[in-house]
Order: sequence, then structure tokens, then C-alpha cells
Amino acid sequence: MTTITDLYPSRGATEVAVPRQDPVFWGSPETRGPITPAELQGYERDGFLPVEELITEDEVAVYRQELDRIIADPATRADERSIVEPKSQEIRSVFEVHRLSQVFANLVRDERVVGRARQILGSDVYVHQSRINVKPGFGASGFYWHSDFETWHAEDGLPNMRTVSVSIALTENFATNGGLMIMPGSHHTFLGCAGETPADNYKKSLQMQDAGTPSDEALTKMAGEYGIRLFTGKAGSATWFDCNCMHGSGDNITPFPRSNVFIVFNSVENEAVEPFAAPVRRPEFIGARDFTPVR
Amino acid sequence: MTTITDLYPSRGATEVAVPRQDPVFWGSPETRGPITPAELQGYERDGFLPVEELITEDEVAVYRQELDRIIADPATRADERSIVEPKSQEIRSVFEVHRLSQVFANLVRDERVVGRARQILGSDVYVHQSRINVKPGFGASGFYWHSDFETWHAEDGLPNMRTVSVSIALTENFATNGGLMIMPGSHHTFLGCAGETPADNYKKSLQMQDAGTPSDEALTKMAGEYGIRLFTGKAGSATWFDCNCMHGSGDNITPFPRSNVFIVFNSVENEAVEPFAAPVRRPEFIGARDFTPVR
Repeated sequence: MTTITDLYPSRGATEVAVPRQDPVFWGSPETRGPITPAELQGYERDGFLPVEELITEDEVAVYRQELDRIIADPATRADERSIVEPKSQEIRSVFEVHRLSQVFANLVRDERVVGRARQILGSDVYVHQSRINVKPGFGASGFYWHSDFETWHAEDGLPNMRTVSVSIALTENFATNGGLMIMPGSHHTFLGCAGETPADNYKKSLQMQDAGTPSDEALTKMAGEYGIRLFTGKAGSATWFDCNCMHGSGDNITPFPRSNVFIVFNSVENEAVEPFAAPVRRPEFIGARDFTPVR
Repeated sequence: MTTITDLYPSRGATEVAVPRQDPVFWGSPETRGPITPAELQGYERDGFLPVEELITEDEVAVYRQELDRIIADPATRADERSIVEPKSQEIRSVFEVHRLSQVFANLVRDERVVGRARQILGSDVYVHQSRINVKPGFGASGFYWHSDFETWHAEDGLPNMRTVSVSIALTENFATNGGLMIMPGSHHTFLGCAGETPADNYKKSLQMQDAGTPSDEALTKMAGEYGIRLFTGKAGSATWFDCNCMHGSGDNITPFPRSNVFIVFNSVENEAVEPFAAPVRRPEFIGARDFTPVR
């Protein structure tokens, strides 16, 4: 039996900030891929990489149609992988879309997508999580500040920060419809959150974060130090971001939906073990246990 | 007894859009004042006028200090003129600040402030409403889309659209901390809302709009036609806007508070009568019944 050291303690009695113990870019300087060296430098420094047109307009139309089909399907609402808006009861997110839909499965294995993930993580990769977020407007709520890795480590058992997410816009992201906000550079520090994890935390936290939430003091300090970057872009644009970025999004009262597809790639050399700070694993549609590399 | 025609029916069985029956700019071309002719043209067309520095940095410091003093005063929380955040129970707004505080009373009668109001409304003016909004960050909720005039007409009895508001920023308004959003040009159409007004509507609607709320269909049409403008600016900047602009604001999850002082000037020739579509008047701290002109 191997013991894995917990490099990033969290959910303890107090909030603790520790320096990141892992690289941000895991490839070697010789690693070839779609990302340029200058872009990789920016990614290492800021924790994110915006891509103006990751997929074309025509492709966007295909994915939006597929999103609409999934949302309209009565089976979706009944599926445990669907999350509804607390207020309007409209569908907010659907998880594991790359298994639910052949169309999204093809997107995941598209070289423009998985190629960038392999390049950043310096290895083969598998999908730790995928989902579509609808954010339909007219008051759809946002996601409060959090580091994804904090949760994926504490509740899903990812040992190291060797995980990258891509958010691909399927509708235009304006400054006004609740786009992604990241604190640039925040990924260099791990913020271990205070508070024990309840057994059914994921059910609540998918609608509104609770355990794993940074304190007002920590957010004030980080926002003062790093600032806040709001991402805007046309449908088809994308933001790649490191698993430990402090990020969140506001609500969306505009009539313009902010729909996107969100894919989390984890290195096959960073397979999930047991949760580091939770009594039970989250369901597999949220934190995968099938580590088959994307081909 | 005089009968006043209801030019803007609202709160009926259905939502109805009617053209504005009133001018936007009530002065004559010869009216002198701090606003330039080009600015007035923009105001007539768009329904708003941004001013980059209405008050100086030093003055901002004075007003912020006064805002902090009011918020910290234990008497404020007990005052019916204070509105608290539903979630955090923090103070969100304090009404009638120009009566509560000599400092804000001085701001109201400052020529840079009341002078612009007189110029736009072409007459002497009085304060229909004043308030400070704190929007403390970390999840403070926003205001859903509404036309102020719809409420001031239906619930406070303002007969005509001869009312202008100014929102003066006391903290920097970023693109990320829930700033004011306006649909430019929306003030040319009155949207009468569906639904009868409950007697205690104001208590709920100050926290979250209900009656007087436009439908998703109307908002989609208006946003498609007019677009949405988000206002940003340093502390000390201001936005003047017509009473019938469709406007709102998102929530604020950043640690940066979005505090402002908000003053509504009404023409002395447009005194409040009985509510046009509500069983009772709202309290005087929300809709004034003292029509003494600002001097």
C-alpha cells in the first residue's frame, strides 16, 4: 500500500494559504502542440489562456443545436446529471455531456481541444468532468469564488495540480451576462478552506458553494494583489485555465444566455485517489473514475 | 376637483407598450446650465448622460466618510428607511439621506448637481427620493430590470415623465462589481406592466422587484432593439438618467463595494398626486410629499 502525501490540506479548522507545489506547465520546452511558446508563458504567469476562435461559427451552430436538444429532452430533467436553477427551476447545467452526447464526445477528442490539454499537462489526458452550462438569463445565478482544484483535491482525490479546464463559449460573452472572472496569478497559491465537508456537499455546492468557500478576508487580499479579469468573447472563443485559479461569475439578468461547454482534462499520471478531505467520493458523473485516455 | 388623465396605464391585466407622451428635455434651447448642447442631444436620444468627474476626489472622501458613519450608526439599522440584504443582513440602502444627513443635503443643493437637474427639467425641482446604496460585495444582489417611472407613476402618483435621477459613484465602478446597466433609447417607450399592486408592495420590491417587473418577452425585444450599456467609472463620476430608462444591475461577488448616492429630482410642475395604480401611497421617505424646491 502506498501512502500519498496530502500536499494541499483543506477543510480543516482554519483557512491556510500555501505556495503551489506543482508546475503550471508540465510539458518540456520541446513539447510540440497548438499553443505557442509566448502563449505558454502567459499561461504559466496568469493561469489562463484565452483563444479567440477555438471553434468556427458553423461548429458553434452544431454544438448549440445539440445543447438545445439535450435541454429540451424530457429525459434530461429527470437525469441526476442535470442541475436546475434554484429560483426558476430551469436547467442550469448538465454533467457528463461527453458521455451523454456523441456530438460533445467528438468535441473532446478534437485535436484543437485535447491537443492543447496534452501540451499543457505533458502527458496523455482523460476527462475528469464535462458539462454544459446554460445560464439562461433573466436572473440566472452565478458561481461564487472558488478554486476548482480545492474541491477536486478535497472531494475527488486529485493528488496534484495537473489538471486544466477549457470553457468554450456557445453564445457571446458580453461584459454584462455573467462571464467568467479570474484573479490572474492566483493559481500560484493554494488556499485551503476552513470547515468540514458534509457527506452530501456536492448537491448543495453545485447550486451555491458552501464548504470550500474562501473567506471575505482572503478574497479581499487576493483581489487587491491580483485584480480581477473578466472574459468576454464571441461564440466559439474559449478560455483555458489552470485548476487552481481563483474564479467565479456573477449572475445574468440580461436576456442574453451565457451558455458554454466546460471540459476538465486531468493527466493520466494524476489519477484520482480517495478524497483528501471528504467522507465519501462524489458521484462519477462529477468526478470521473474511468481514467481511459482520450484518443 | 380636477381629474388627471392617466397617460401611462400600468398594473393591468396585460403588459402594454405605449409611446412616451412627454419630452425628455424640458428646457428651451436658450436654457443655460452646466450641460452642453451636444450632451443634451445625447441625453434626449439615449436617455442618459455620463459625467466623468461630477465631484472631486477630495469630495468623494467626505461623502464616503459620511456614508460609513451612517452605516455604522446603530440607529440606522433600526430606522425604517434602511433596507438590508436578504442573505447577509448587511445594510443595502438607506433612504432619505438628504434629510438624515447635512452632508448629503449639501450635495443635493450643489449647483453641479441641482443645476443639471433644473436644466434638464426646465423648472425648479424638488427631491422625490434620495438614497445611498452600499452594495458591499461578496454576493450583494442587484436590481432586476425596471423603469423607475413605472413605479413612481403607479405607486407614487407622478403624472408626467419630468423626473431625472443621478447616480454618483462613491467607489470605483468596474465592469465586474454590479454597475448600472441601461438599455439606451428605452426611455422613448413606456412599458405598462401586468399585475395588480399589493398594498405592501414597496417592502418586497425594495429587496427584489415583483409587481412592476417586465416580462421576459418584453426584455428580449427591448435588449435586441436597444442593446445594453454598462457604466463604469472612477469614484466621483456620475450618470444622469431619465426616469423611464429600462435599467438594472447584476450582483456583486467581487470584494470591491459598489457604493453610490442616488438622487431623484422631480419638476415642481409635476408634483405627485394620488397613485395611478396602487391602493395606497408609499411612505414619504420613498416618494416625497414635500414639494419644496431645492435652493
